[in-house]
Amino acid sequence: MGDNGEYSSQFFGEAVAEFMRLPGVGRKSAQRYALHMLGRPIEERKRFIAAIQRFLEEVQHCPECHGLSDDGGVCSICASRSRDRAILCVVADTRDVMAIEHSQSYRGLYYVMGGLIDPMQGIGPSQLPIDQLLSTIVGKGIREVILAFGATMEGDTTQFYLQRCIAPTGVTISQPARGVSLGENLEQADGMTLGTAFAQRVVINPGSTVERNVKKADQTR
Amino acid sequence: MGDNGEYSSQFFGEAVAEFMRLPGVGRKSAQRYALHMLGRPIEERKRFIAAIQRFLEEVQHCPECHGLSDDGGVCSICASRSRDRAILCVVADTRDVMAIEHSQSYRGLYYVMGGLIDPMQGIGPSQLPIDQLLSTIVGKGIREVILAFGATMEGDTTQFYLQRCIAPTGVTISQPARGVSLGENLEQADGMTLGTAFAQRVVINPGSTVERNVKKADQTR
Repeated sequence: MGDNGEYSSQFFGEAVAEFMRLPGVGRKSAQRYALHMLGRPIEERKRFIAAIQRFLEEVQHCPECHGLSDDGGVCSICASRSRDRAILCVVADTRDVMAIEHSQSYRGLYYVMGGLIDPMQGIGPSQLPIDQLLSTIVGKGIREVILAFGATMEGDTTQFYLQRCIAPTGVTISQPARGVSLGENLEQADGMTLGTAFAQRVVINPGSTVERNVKKADQTR
Repeated sequence: MGDNGEYSSQFFGEAVAEFMRLPGVGRKSAQRYALHMLGRPIEERKRFIAAIQRFLEEVQHCPECHGLSDDGGVCSICASRSRDRAILCVVADTRDVMAIEHSQSYRGLYYVMGGLIDPMQGIGPSQLPIDQLLSTIVGKGIREVILAFGATMEGDTTQFYLQRCIAPTGVTISQPARGVSLGENLEQADGMTLGTAFAQRVVINPGSTVERNVKKADQTR
């Protein structure tokens, strides 16, 4: 090893150490990242630095949905006039917003709780912005609230608690369907999932609930 | 999706796009990196940016070994007085220097060729700094040159060519042993590797070459 550290260049070593702070990045990946960037044209290096710097210095939380927002103003989803402003999807985390947006299956608004009720981690309802959620629901004239949490103990607990808080407002409360994942064989699905999938099974013959649901969804678009 | 881009924050989207330029990083990892950094304390974010920036702006190549060097001066390996300055290990790439340093099996100097002879890619001997390598060998009074290239067609071609260039200087020329990787079963090794391992087999009974090599290595330490 070099005598001023692990590498022949101290600055290289420091960059590798910083890349290794990223989740799931080990020494080899960090070295690959640093060497890759070093081999890029000067304009590309500058753009890399500038983008990461601006992001880390500027990005804040949207005052309305608590999702990510440039410069602390209202985020582009909350500001958009082309979204259905009567549906609010409540999620635990900004990652969930990204996953749902990526699926292109939802065109309403979001509300990011910033966590889930988790007694094991000492997180109770008082640490979640529930009052603000209720004000949003009433203030914005929301018609339907989708409680979109993971199918976990914490997700279910939070959903159950929020359901009781929101019920008095009179809005429709829904949750994403649970069942067999697309591309999954029945034998791959775990017993709990299969149990839910059978309990919440949907009729598929013509004129059935599913067809009616599809028509209803078409009308609301 | 947000209407100003894919995310509710444009700066977030730009940071994700930049992280995705790193080798082997897809959208999900890039998002994870960006969100992870966003969740770190302000000092940590600043240190991340500063380290990557200094690295990308300052690191250059060492004028002696062509490896990585801070600020374009002689690198810490070439400058070190505690290394054996009579052995020169010739490698294709700075990555190889890192891999060898990490193995802690070598305490001599390096020379980074910056590539291998590869006719398929249009890289011939004239594109490699062979004259400078020969000057280094003679000028520094090198006693042994280790040609440490990968066991590939390009590595073998480069080794063969360099061997003929270096031979007139009269220095000892060596190459790392080739054979069965540690932890690998014989049945896992490919036929070429097994063939080499058998052709270059070493005698292991007491007083044999291996024992003598070990003693010789001990003396040179």
